[in-house]
Amino acid sequence: MKKVAIIGASGYSGIELTKLIKQHPYLEISGLFVSETSTDKYKNINELYPEVIGTIDYILKPLIAHEFDFINDNCDYVCLCTDHFVSLNLAKKFLSMDKVVVDLSGAFRLENKEYYEKYYGFMHNHSDLLDFADYGLAEWNKNSISSSKLIAVPGCYPTAALMALKPLKKCGLIEENNKIIVNAVSGISGAGRKATLNNSFCEVSLKPYGLFTHRHTPEINQYLGIDVLFTPHVGNFKRGILETIYVELNEWVTTEQIEDSFKYYQNMHLVRVLNKRLPTIDGVVGTPFVDIGWESQGNQLIIVVAIDNLLKGAASQAVQCMNLNCGLPSEHGLL
Amino acid sequence: MKKVAIIGASGYSGIELTKLIKQHPYLEISGLFVSETSTDKYKNINELYPEVIGTIDYILKPLIAHEFDFINDNCDYVCLCTDHFVSLNLAKKFLSMDKVVVDLSGAFRLENKEYYEKYYGFMHNHSDLLDFADYGLAEWNKNSISSSKLIAVPGCYPTAALMALKPLKKCGLIEENNKIIVNAVSGISGAGRKATLNNSFCEVSLKPYGLFTHRHTPEINQYLGIDVLFTPHVGNFKRGILETIYVELNEWVTTEQIEDSFKYYQNMHLVRVLNKRLPTIDGVVGTPFVDIGWESQGNQLIIVVAIDNLLKGAASQAVQCMNLNCGLPSEHGLL
Amino acid sequence: MKKVAIIGASGYSGIELTKLIKQHPYLEISGLFVSETSTDKYKNINELYPEVIGTIDYILKPLIAHEFDFINDNCDYVCLCTDHFVSLNLAKKFLSMDKVVVDLSGAFRLENKEYYEKYYGFMHNHSDLLDFADYGLAEWNKNSISSSKLIAVPGCYPTAALMALKPLKKCGLIEENNKIIVNAVSGISGAGRKATLNNSFCEVSLKPYGLFTHRHTPEINQYLGIDVLFTPHVGNFKRGILETIYVELNEWVTTEQIEDSFKYYQNMHLVRVLNKRLPTIDGVVGTPFVDIGWESQGNQLIIVVAIDNLLKGAASQAVQCMNLNCGLPSEHGLL
Amino acid sequence: MKKVAIIGASGYSGIELTKLIKQHPYLEISGLFVSETSTDKYKNINELYPEVIGTIDYILKPLIAHEFDFINDNCDYVCLCTDHFVSLNLAKKFLSMDKVVVDLSGAFRLENKEYYEKYYGFMHNHSDLLDFADYGLAEWNKNSISSSKLIAVPGCYPTAALMALKPLKKCGLIEENNKIIVNAVSGISGAGRKATLNNSFCEVSLKPYGLFTHRHTPEINQYLGIDVLFTPHVGNFKRGILETIYVELNEWVTTEQIEDSFKYYQNMHLVRVLNKRLPTIDGVVGTPFVDIGWESQGNQLIIVVAIDNLLKGAASQAVQCMNLNCGLPSEHGLL
Repeated sequence: MKKVAIIGASGYSGIELTKLIKQHPYLEISGLFVSETSTDKYKNINELYPEVIGTIDYILKPLIAHEFDFINDNCDYVCLCTDHFVSLNLAKKFLSMDKVVVDLSGAFRLENKEYYEKYYGFMHNHSDLLDFADYGLAEWNKNSISSSKLIAVPGCYPTAALMALKPLKKCGLIEENNKIIVNAVSGISGAGRKATLNNSFCEVSLKPYGLFTHRHTPEINQYLGIDVLFTPHVGNFKRGILETIYVELNEWVTTEQIEDSFKYYQNMHLVRVLNKRLPTIDGVVGTPFVDIGWESQGNQLIIVVAIDNLLKGAASQAVQCMNLNCGLPSEHGLL
Repeated sequence: MKKVAIIGASGYSGIELTKLIKQHPYLEISGLFVSETSTDKYKNINELYPEVIGTIDYILKPLIAHEFDFINDNCDYVCLCTDHFVSLNLAKKFLSMDKVVVDLSGAFRLENKEYYEKYYGFMHNHSDLLDFADYGLAEWNKNSISSSKLIAVPGCYPTAALMALKPLKKCGLIEENNKIIVNAVSGISGAGRKATLNNSFCEVSLKPYGLFTHRHTPEINQYLGIDVLFTPHVGNFKRGILETIYVELNEWVTTEQIEDSFKYYQNMHLVRVLNKRLPTIDGVVGTPFVDIGWESQGNQLIIVVAIDNLLKGAASQAVQCMNLNCGLPSEHGLL
Repeated sequence: MKKVAIIGASGYSGIELTKLIKQHPYLEISGLFVSETSTDKYKNINELYPEVIGTIDYILKPLIAHEFDFINDNCDYVCLCTDHFVSLNLAKKFLSMDKVVVDLSGAFRLENKEYYEKYYGFMHNHSDLLDFADYGLAEWNKNSISSSKLIAVPGCYPTAALMALKPLKKCGLIEENNKIIVNAVSGISGAGRKATLNNSFCEVSLKPYGLFTHRHTPEINQYLGIDVLFTPHVGNFKRGILETIYVELNEWVTTEQIEDSFKYYQNMHLVRVLNKRLPTIDGVVGTPFVDIGWESQGNQLIIVVAIDNLLKGAASQAVQCMNLNCGLPSEHGLL
Repeated sequence: MKKVAIIGASGYSGIELTKLIKQHPYLEISGLFVSETSTDKYKNINELYPEVIGTIDYILKPLIAHEFDFINDNCDYVCLCTDHFVSLNLAKKFLSMDKVVVDLSGAFRLENKEYYEKYYGFMHNHSDLLDFADYGLAEWNKNSISSSKLIAVPGCYPTAALMALKPLKKCGLIEENNKIIVNAVSGISGAGRKATLNNSFCEVSLKPYGLFTHRHTPEINQYLGIDVLFTPHVGNFKRGILETIYVELNEWVTTEQIEDSFKYYQNMHLVRVLNKRLPTIDGVVGTPFVDIGWESQGNQLIIVVAIDNLLKGAASQAVQCMNLNCGLPSEHGLL
């Protein structure tokens, strides 16, 4: 059994990660932590999430000095469900203790440190780690994840987009000159567990945001190797992401080639290539799956992809990464 | 035309009141105000509520010193959509300017000042006004509202409960010894326009709150003249209140007597007595109506009543009160 | 006053049209009709829609033989809220009575009768009327609507798309070679008032449908004069359409030119050009408005447009058409 | 391993039961069946429920003659997720094959056959089985369930009500003369998987139904031994039941006695007695738990109870019954 500490455990990704590890045959929770200033410190996590009363029973400990010693002595993995700039410094610290750091924030996803100023609004003070980190897209980076010490778990939107597009890229069906548009709709939980007017029940309805400027754009571009146009929306539902992706193909591409490209996933248990049966939000919520459907006409391809933003878009992909890092199949304990 | 100032106009009751007055043939808006510390000051109200772009166009002015002079010189009615303790002091001030004050908060609804400590958590520093105020339940207090200088617009839950129960009381079908239970479910807008974790989209689902202690209990009891057991819930919808009211009748009460009691409303245009056709939330949302249905068996009566909490439970009832105070029918401009 | 008969009045467009005409200063309802086989015949429309009890009070009459005489003798306008193939035959009949026919179905929107086989699945047996009909996009076809005898009220999706794109076309900013993608999300009411498993509450979640084949595609293409790629989705909400439209502009187009193009609407009261403030579903639901926002970067333009599918996408646009046909401003009685 | 056939597997209870058995360590599915006339026959169940693609893979076989032989030869348990009158005849047939029948319909819950005419609208043609059947309220009827051949799994509303009230009855805190009101709100899935206008997305909002006449009333009364007043509502959510129960206690009852009565559940893993922390819908959805909270004042007790109507209200309770019948703890495989 490998032992896992979760920092920032009180948020929506944190509780999902806690649930997944709780039922995992090879991972176990050694502690749940929140920031010293959190109003949730010393609460049982099931006070925040009543659905886990009776099944999950951990105190949210403030991450004060002696807890670092505890983690040093007791943990193999440290999962960071913290804000980007918090992850930055914590990662450095836990790496120095020789822990494997699994960061669910965006702090180590981008290679280009200037993008942190442009898209995240802060100077990256540990840019040496940007090269050191491995991108945790489980179905694509198995080798690097297996031996990694710092895993940058992908963003929710990029996970969906990359899972849909990378097979085409790998097969040479798309390249830099192909126009790609990613139209995405996310549930409200993507904004995290906090009280803002934007997330307030009466203020929520379907709307676009972050046109041309969302921080997940450079992440998709970097790992696809092709620049895309990415437009996020929020919808009036709690969980899930649905992306409708428009790809202008080269004339010579056939439907057989498209179909073949998705065979990349054929023995990967957490990817469901549905072809003409198009994904829906309810088809993936509560599951670790990626659903991919597509249709084409002439040189126009439309791919529809859906994930649970809190699972494949965060917690279950983090578990996939730890599985690989432990030498296990990525879906171990997730099905 | 009578001129109306709305204080606290940026909230959910404030915008509804603004819409109603905007289309009213005899009332007009002289200004919308927010507190000096509001982050919404100097914004156009349609920046907060996009649905009224093109139809409503007022700046939310901070209520600073010279605005009191403006109101003194320019307004007939001052509507307070403010917090209870803010209303307290503002009412005194505007009464001294000889304005008619229409208070949508709870500051002047209860006769017993000790209830303010017990249920509202503050000492009432203008308890002389508690007797002076008139309760604005339009269908029941027409005369006092007509000549009032300080109108306490009823709470949303009490409006529904009193409209359902007062006809029975008036006809002598219920009295102090009859057991009455009011089970209520409200939409989230009842909690007001503010960012709290409780109102956060992902945290909302049907649940009870405030058992035995809700501040609307003494309000119902006082104006019904019978103590009831009142239990509120919030539901996962934006607007509307549905109350299911259980009344244990005396043995001698007949269904004809019940039916007759509701004939009290027969020429009142904003009350729809549906009898066996039971009310629903969607039947009243966006309308100024009270819907009342009922069924009985033996000595057990169940009354179901529904209102839009922001209209009959707040803004449209305030307009009814101003109508009566102007000598107009209470439904004037509302249908 | 002009008199209006509504056929197919029991559906979601029918009730909205009834409400709008009821409060219109120059139009009045002469009768509401349903098919002879409807289970709603002889019901009061307010039995179907409890929100209009007390404000709307009409019997849904079956459209049997003598009702045609009634309509012939008593009506100026006949609004068809009927299925496509029902409209086909009724239009012919009412035109022969010299009524102005306002058809809310798709029966007369397309010029090319072969598209009816391809997209609607039936042979058009009155194809002579396809040329005779005028397309009721109120802000664009004022002249032809004004003198029309057969008005084809636009589809909900095409209304939104055309309102967003026609200004660019008119100004020469887009032409046949510009790639245009219309990604649309509609509320469930777009599917009409009928019991299907697809519309069943527990089965609804965000999902795409009709890729490459939706019948609104040729309608958009015909009236824009440019072929677009149109992809509809349904979302988990009752009313409203939001379209996110991706336009690849020619290099020489400036943001000033885009901004200028939307000035076409500057004196049109039912179009709200919000520019950088992007539309939302809740901003338009219950209103007759079209909301248009946009942002551009390089030669990529994104337009976001929202309407209430039952109002601007159906009933309020029908009223705009009747207004124009009566010589009134199109927004008459709608604000 | 014991083998289970599920009849009527295509409905909402059927799929939940299939999921639970699929992951159960001691039960396995031998076949899923639907009626001969079902349009779902020969479909894979994952065509109906996309969330289980990749995890559940069974054909829905029509229940034709030779399938009875198959079941006879291959199954230990037959679960009936069928309509009441279908269960009636199937139960007889499978009992004659010496199978243990677990019926999720209401066909065998009531002792008094006349109630079937009154509340279910049919004559019970196998009333001899009414005495033979055992009521599957797992936490209360362990012994009879353990040796039963015909288990009547309780209705969803009665499960919640009985779990809340039976501890009080057992401790003598309530008896025939105590007034008890059960106000219940259920998600739409309670109405089953079928297309009706009532369940249609646009028609759903919170509303009461079945006042004084709901068939779950006699079921609660029979198994509590006290007549209650039961009033159901539907709410605008997919799953879950919340009941707010009003109990008028005898004067001598203390809060300690109430608290003690709920200790009945203290070693029962699927009951969470939350006391003053009140249950919510989201706290139980997707779980096999019963959540119970309560507060009292004077002689008035309010109990709030929540369950997932498809799990503890149907499928997971059926599994609890099979567990007990196999000699396992009732929660086996459910946590």
